[in-house]
Amino acid sequence: MAMENDSSPSLTTLFTCLKTATSPSKIKHDIVDFASNIKNIAVDDPRRIIHSLKVALAITLVSMIYYLQPFYDGMGDAGMWAILTVVVVFEYTVGATLSKGMNRGFATLLAGALGVGAESFGSLFGPTIKPIVLGLLVFLLVAAATFSRFIPNIKKKYDYGVLIFILTFSLVSVSGYRVDKIIKLAHQRFLTIIFGGATCVVISMCVFPVWAGEDLHKHIVTNLGKLASFLEGFGEEYYRVSKGDKSFLSAYKSVLNSKVTEESLANFAWWEIGHGKFRFNHPWKQYLKIGVYTRQCAYHIEALSGYLDAKNEVTSEFQITVQEPCMKMSSEVGKTLKELGNSMNLMTQPSTSAVHIENCKKAIDDLNVTLKKSMAVERDNILETIPVIAVTSILIDIIKCVEKISEAIEELSKQAHFKEPKDMTSDEAGKPHSRRRGVAIKPVDGGNDQELITIKVISDDEIPQKMDLDKSKREINQL
Amino acid sequence: MAMENDSSPSLTTLFTCLKTATSPSKIKHDIVDFASNIKNIAVDDPRRIIHSLKVALAITLVSMIYYLQPFYDGMGDAGMWAILTVVVVFEYTVGATLSKGMNRGFATLLAGALGVGAESFGSLFGPTIKPIVLGLLVFLLVAAATFSRFIPNIKKKYDYGVLIFILTFSLVSVSGYRVDKIIKLAHQRFLTIIFGGATCVVISMCVFPVWAGEDLHKHIVTNLGKLASFLEGFGEEYYRVSKGDKSFLSAYKSVLNSKVTEESLANFAWWEIGHGKFRFNHPWKQYLKIGVYTRQCAYHIEALSGYLDAKNEVTSEFQITVQEPCMKMSSEVGKTLKELGNSMNLMTQPSTSAVHIENCKKAIDDLNVTLKKSMAVERDNILETIPVIAVTSILIDIIKCVEKISEAIEELSKQAHFKEPKDMTSDEAGKPHSRRRGVAIKPVDGGNDQELITIKVISDDEIPQKMDLDKSKREINQL
Repeated sequence: MAMENDSSPSLTTLFTCLKTATSPSKIKHDIVDFASNIKNIAVDDPRRIIHSLKVALAITLVSMIYYLQPFYDGMGDAGMWAILTVVVVFEYTVGATLSKGMNRGFATLLAGALGVGAESFGSLFGPTIKPIVLGLLVFLLVAAATFSRFIPNIKKKYDYGVLIFILTFSLVSVSGYRVDKIIKLAHQRFLTIIFGGATCVVISMCVFPVWAGEDLHKHIVTNLGKLASFLEGFGEEYYRVSKGDKSFLSAYKSVLNSKVTEESLANFAWWEIGHGKFRFNHPWKQYLKIGVYTRQCAYHIEALSGYLDAKNEVTSEFQITVQEPCMKMSSEVGKTLKELGNSMNLMTQPSTSAVHIENCKKAIDDLNVTLKKSMAVERDNILETIPVIAVTSILIDIIKCVEKISEAIEELSKQAHFKEPKDMTSDEAGKPHSRRRGVAIKPVDGGNDQELITIKVISDDEIPQKMDLDKSKREINQL
Repeated sequence: MAMENDSSPSLTTLFTCLKTATSPSKIKHDIVDFASNIKNIAVDDPRRIIHSLKVALAITLVSMIYYLQPFYDGMGDAGMWAILTVVVVFEYTVGATLSKGMNRGFATLLAGALGVGAESFGSLFGPTIKPIVLGLLVFLLVAAATFSRFIPNIKKKYDYGVLIFILTFSLVSVSGYRVDKIIKLAHQRFLTIIFGGATCVVISMCVFPVWAGEDLHKHIVTNLGKLASFLEGFGEEYYRVSKGDKSFLSAYKSVLNSKVTEESLANFAWWEIGHGKFRFNHPWKQYLKIGVYTRQCAYHIEALSGYLDAKNEVTSEFQITVQEPCMKMSSEVGKTLKELGNSMNLMTQPSTSAVHIENCKKAIDDLNVTLKKSMAVERDNILETIPVIAVTSILIDIIKCVEKISEAIEELSKQAHFKEPKDMTSDEAGKPHSRRRGVAIKPVDGGNDQELITIKVISDDEIPQKMDLDKSKREINQL
């Protein structure tokens, strides 16, 4: 990610500049540049400054306690372990801190116990053979533990724990002390680790906490918004009627590579206790599913954006013929995503998104009719129609994808007990209705991605429309 | 990645099973399952076993030296630091180990010096105010250092160094010892860290080394191969004439999320000395560029693969009409990628890939002709043509992408001084020729992605063909 970020502060440039000793004005310019870049990093996410202060606070606290207590002669060994723990355990999010803290605590306990056992076992063999036995034990356990870090499930959640296990076991078993001294040392060291870890966890959770779960939630909502903005603006951009800011055209690109971020956030969220709107055991895995479909949608958008680059090309006649349904498809699918994002953001069940999906399908129907007509008329500029048809085909793929996203969010709203939307009637011109007007979107034959659009509207007064939808579906399947 | 890997050994399942105490046969079955999964991890990449043994060897060596030397009373403090260094510094690849080792060494040196300075400075204020001054200094420096970890350039290469800087500075400045004792301690500790780090680096580089650079090179070649296999097989699959193994249809999916792997490998490769076929300062950044285009190509393939899922659909008449150019486009672009992958693998300049790109363009020409003819004839099943046209449009996008890949590999072959291909004539029916028959592929107006195909064939006897190509280009641009 960093490699493609050209606005990152260029320390190297600064150093090179200082070395070659160019004119003072250039040095001044570079320093101002560097400072403004630093400022941008802070302004982008002010929580970064708070995090830095939190870490500094934790380390100062831990070290001062050991420094000030008169019964410690200087820091001693124990204080060192507390500082070491804070430095390596304190992470940006609460979940990451908890994960590292727990891993460190349990691994130290387990490895300490095994280490003492190994030491006692080694002592049975007398002083000459003992080092060989211990060396063999260390070799075998370290090799096994290192290999276990390649097992995906262990790597995901316990990688740091295994590292600490290797460290503690090696330290304890080859320490060369007698068992009673080891136990005393281990006891003291374990207490300081607990103290350091607890300081981290308390500061991380109580002083402006950064929750991985909340970040994951916002991340998914933001990504949905980025895709929505692109799709809402695509029609106007394609028909060159748009003006003003065009940043929405490239914002979606960050979604393409969001997998790693989402997985690590979900992983850390697993360790977190309930916070804000999120209970303990919130269905974080479902967020990953939504993420997969969001990325799939972004891949299609990447293909779509290729057709925007044709800057020299004039809008063809055929393109104008299908303008209305094409713009409608794009803007309605954008609205669907925006609605889904909003309902996720407010943690309410998605409601009006169903209306937009219906509109999408109506637009596809219109497109079919228009295509049939226009293809019958035009024949000379047949090659002109190809990119336009490709665009509509990709838009249909995107509608498919958005349906999957909608399905996944519907599932999430059930699992996480999202609220019913408060004000349903405002959207439908005050028309009262007794039932929630949701959509249960299910593939007809259970999981076959092929079925383009199959929507069962759960509302009695919708039956005529349902018939229309089935008809429209048949037509669409011809596509 | 792990979340989607269902074949990962299910420790949790094993534990759950042991807890619920089901029938012994089920436990046995689960254990066998677990063991076979472990075996798979080892068989997938046997270097993992070797790595585990290397780590174990390094730790055993370091700890034994301290344990056996009679003049150390037990391990003492110093030995502990050597073990700690080995545990945290020894990474899978040589580059990662070097990166961590160097970071650790320099950060310890810098932080130690600053820490001694801070301690001396604090002593000026007398024993009452000293802790406050030191606390303030630690707070400020730790906050600044923690914040610097958010700067992309620092995060990329020096993240671990900053961590160690924070640790060492805090430890030294609040240790409470007198300066002369600190210097002695720092000296001893620094030597053990150097010893631990050197052990890691030597074992990592001399015993079956795993080079990040070589891995990156192979990774890119493998990815090109995966895309090539898909495209070579796509035509047959689309026209349902393929048989046998279909794993090539999903292999490309791993390319979609390859960004993080590639960037971290390139980052580690930067630290590595020359090895095998790679000199020091090999243009690793160019690999990232190839990676970007490869992923772009994979996004288009993802869109393409959607049209394969239509299992119930019969092959339409129109589909059969364009079968020949369509299959040709797909197989030729696949061959181009395979050739490019092969030439990268052998580190020779790409040669025959140009021929395949030409064939691609001929196939596009054929497609144009066929389309013009068939569109004039057919009119009833106009809707049938849409997915077929979409497929060809995506194939054309893929050809664009592959040209960019070819360009990037051409650039790499210059930067890295790839060899000239040895046996050029074998490919062209023994026809001798004096010049390398390569292609310099450049966008006409320098960087405008819009130009579909612009190839200048650098060969005198190719001029007539060049004319044809220009004509074909004009036609293609109509698309």
